[in-house]
Amino acid sequence: MSLVVQKFGGTSLADAARIKAVADRVESTRREGHDVVVVVSAMGATTDQLVALAAEVSDDPSPREMDMLLSAGERISMALLSITLNSRGIPAVSFTGSQAGILTDSSHGSAKILDIQGTRVRDSLAQGRVVIVAGFQGVDPESKEITTLGRGGSDATAVALAAALGADSVEIYTDVDGVFTADPRMVSDAMKLEEIPFDEMLELSAGGAGVLMSRAVEFGRRYEVPIHVRSSFHDGEGTWVRESPMEQAIVSGIAHDRSEAKVTVNRVPDRPGVAAALFGSLAAAGVNIDMIVQNVSHDGSTDISFTVPRANLVDAERIAKQVAAEIDAESVDVDAEIAKVSLVGAGMKSHPGVAAKVFETLASAGINIEMISTSTIRISCVVRADDVEAAVQALHAAFDPPAIYEEVGA
Amino acid sequence: MSLVVQKFGGTSLADAARIKAVADRVESTRREGHDVVVVVSAMGATTDQLVALAAEVSDDPSPREMDMLLSAGERISMALLSITLNSRGIPAVSFTGSQAGILTDSSHGSAKILDIQGTRVRDSLAQGRVVIVAGFQGVDPESKEITTLGRGGSDATAVALAAALGADSVEIYTDVDGVFTADPRMVSDAMKLEEIPFDEMLELSAGGAGVLMSRAVEFGRRYEVPIHVRSSFHDGEGTWVRESPMEQAIVSGIAHDRSEAKVTVNRVPDRPGVAAALFGSLAAAGVNIDMIVQNVSHDGSTDISFTVPRANLVDAERIAKQVAAEIDAESVDVDAEIAKVSLVGAGMKSHPGVAAKVFETLASAGINIEMISTSTIRISCVVRADDVEAAVQALHAAFDPPAIYEEVGA
Repeated sequence: MSLVVQKFGGTSLADAARIKAVADRVESTRREGHDVVVVVSAMGATTDQLVALAAEVSDDPSPREMDMLLSAGERISMALLSITLNSRGIPAVSFTGSQAGILTDSSHGSAKILDIQGTRVRDSLAQGRVVIVAGFQGVDPESKEITTLGRGGSDATAVALAAALGADSVEIYTDVDGVFTADPRMVSDAMKLEEIPFDEMLELSAGGAGVLMSRAVEFGRRYEVPIHVRSSFHDGEGTWVRESPMEQAIVSGIAHDRSEAKVTVNRVPDRPGVAAALFGSLAAAGVNIDMIVQNVSHDGSTDISFTVPRANLVDAERIAKQVAAEIDAESVDVDAEIAKVSLVGAGMKSHPGVAAKVFETLASAGINIEMISTSTIRISCVVRADDVEAAVQALHAAFDPPAIYEEVGA
Repeated sequence: MSLVVQKFGGTSLADAARIKAVADRVESTRREGHDVVVVVSAMGATTDQLVALAAEVSDDPSPREMDMLLSAGERISMALLSITLNSRGIPAVSFTGSQAGILTDSSHGSAKILDIQGTRVRDSLAQGRVVIVAGFQGVDPESKEITTLGRGGSDATAVALAAALGADSVEIYTDVDGVFTADPRMVSDAMKLEEIPFDEMLELSAGGAGVLMSRAVEFGRRYEVPIHVRSSFHDGEGTWVRESPMEQAIVSGIAHDRSEAKVTVNRVPDRPGVAAALFGSLAAAGVNIDMIVQNVSHDGSTDISFTVPRANLVDAERIAKQVAAEIDAESVDVDAEIAKVSLVGAGMKSHPGVAAKVFETLASAGINIEMISTSTIRISCVVRADDVEAAVQALHAAFDPPAIYEEVGA
């Protein structure tokens, strides 16, 4: 008897008909002999509607009360799914994050899971029940306050719960068929990957692949829980994210991200501590930094550029200008019309020609590169927002991922 | 410094504008120097919408999961009200029934409040906060399961919480101006009562006056918490429900109820135990009985009639027919086209002519009385449903409540 954790997002639970389809899926998994824990998001647009209601009564809603508000969403979807299963004679029980023992820190709206107790979940499984757990939410054990996990929280709940319960795998049901070598809406011959290692999936997620959030992949990697990303609309295999003995692809896939903006601090005096002053202030204000690029200095000064989520741009600009004045930098420029394209593949570690081929490919397509950032298994370039589709298409055509064994740059 | 508990129903919280109006009310109460605890229902039609969703997925939803589902409603309204107050600089915090320590028995859908701990409520009040508590919901301390209190539950939460906290009074905000001598939609010269004792309010509530549910009145009486029933739309005084030294009215008001149906078991053998068999079986099936009438027997048999909520009629008929067969009764008749009209007034205890005047008044209006049931302060008559408006009007004209000092039946 194995234990499977299945996670369904809001689209998969949008109305009564979809909830019944989810119940079908759970029922057939049980018939195959598995114990099932289901993690649910709020139905369809519920979270957006609740956020809109809060915006009607306040410009600056209390984070503690926002969590109280938003956590109502999963309570509705989990109860409806449990009602559906019970009325078919399948014993089921739903638990809030708090009831399931999902313990978090106290950061309302972006809480981190610290531990999962899962006592009631285990007891109910032992009684032969399907257990439905609210995704996206938990409780701070010290203050007893309800918290929410922020973006991608339900995926993180599912994978962390699978780790805590020793589940054999976790299935993330979504409205696409799996993880693709590039966005299929952009690249017509993008391929679904059968398998991808955790490290590469992390880079794709960080690079903007929305199908699975980095937090969930991190839990999967840390606790070695295989993640199966698959369609909620049909039974076909999706993509397995796991450590695998397979030959490493040079390029597994291409991700892109249009949600960021670029900030440049010009002519920063080149002395110790200036970067610390800048990024320390930004971190203190809760601004998430993605890429940071600083080049060698000339004439005792340098330029520092970084990217932030567009939602943080106003804060980031304000803080950058304050710090720029304090450290005697010349000026601050901001640019919201950028996009990031990332090429990911563990095999590029041993293929030094990949970066060069990326730059050549973009140059041939007439696309200017504004920032470059690399890791051992990723190359990211910031380009004009208008160029991103052409960049993804050109790179996909040049590298044809998943490109295994292929010599590049030769 | 006094403590006031204010309860707002779904209509008063139907949208963002109404929630802001409730916040105005809370703000002005605080400005008058009171500590405030607010008890809220779910917004507008939320509960009906959730019930409808459950009906889409199941004909027979799990009561445990229905409570999980419905308790999401108050979570939304309380968080939104708290967000509104906090954004105005009024420190506020919302608590679920469970967080407020509202301990109930385990009857999902119709739980009874056993105790209120209120630790977090008291602590937050001591910190100078407005405390917002979800009405209608609690937690079974043994199983840790969420429960709901059923019909009228939010009023009961408010009065019980006021009792537990030692509040000076509880204000029930509603869409009418207070408690009237009869339904103003039926009787144009119906008067708003300034004051009514708990006993009489209990009889009016039991007689169908929807403005305040019996359960809340019972808590008020038991713990001597004055209840102020008042309009959420203006500042005027409503009706105070409390023990009062005032001269007792002969007739305080007239209530009516169209929600019941009548069941008659014909020619029941007149021997000990038959009533016990009948009503024991009905109670075991959870059928609520209101009036019971059994007359003297002739020829060794009698007829037993009783009224039940129309929603219970199918169950009541089935059970009555089973029991009728077992006890050799002749037949069972059911009638859903009835209504009940009740005349309530503590003064009628000392005025024996009231009952006679009721029957004369209805007879003069050409209205047939099908069942009669009395208490020391109430006379209830079952009439045809079509006759109820005429009955209320005739009785109101004849008794002119609140009729103080007036001699009747003279």
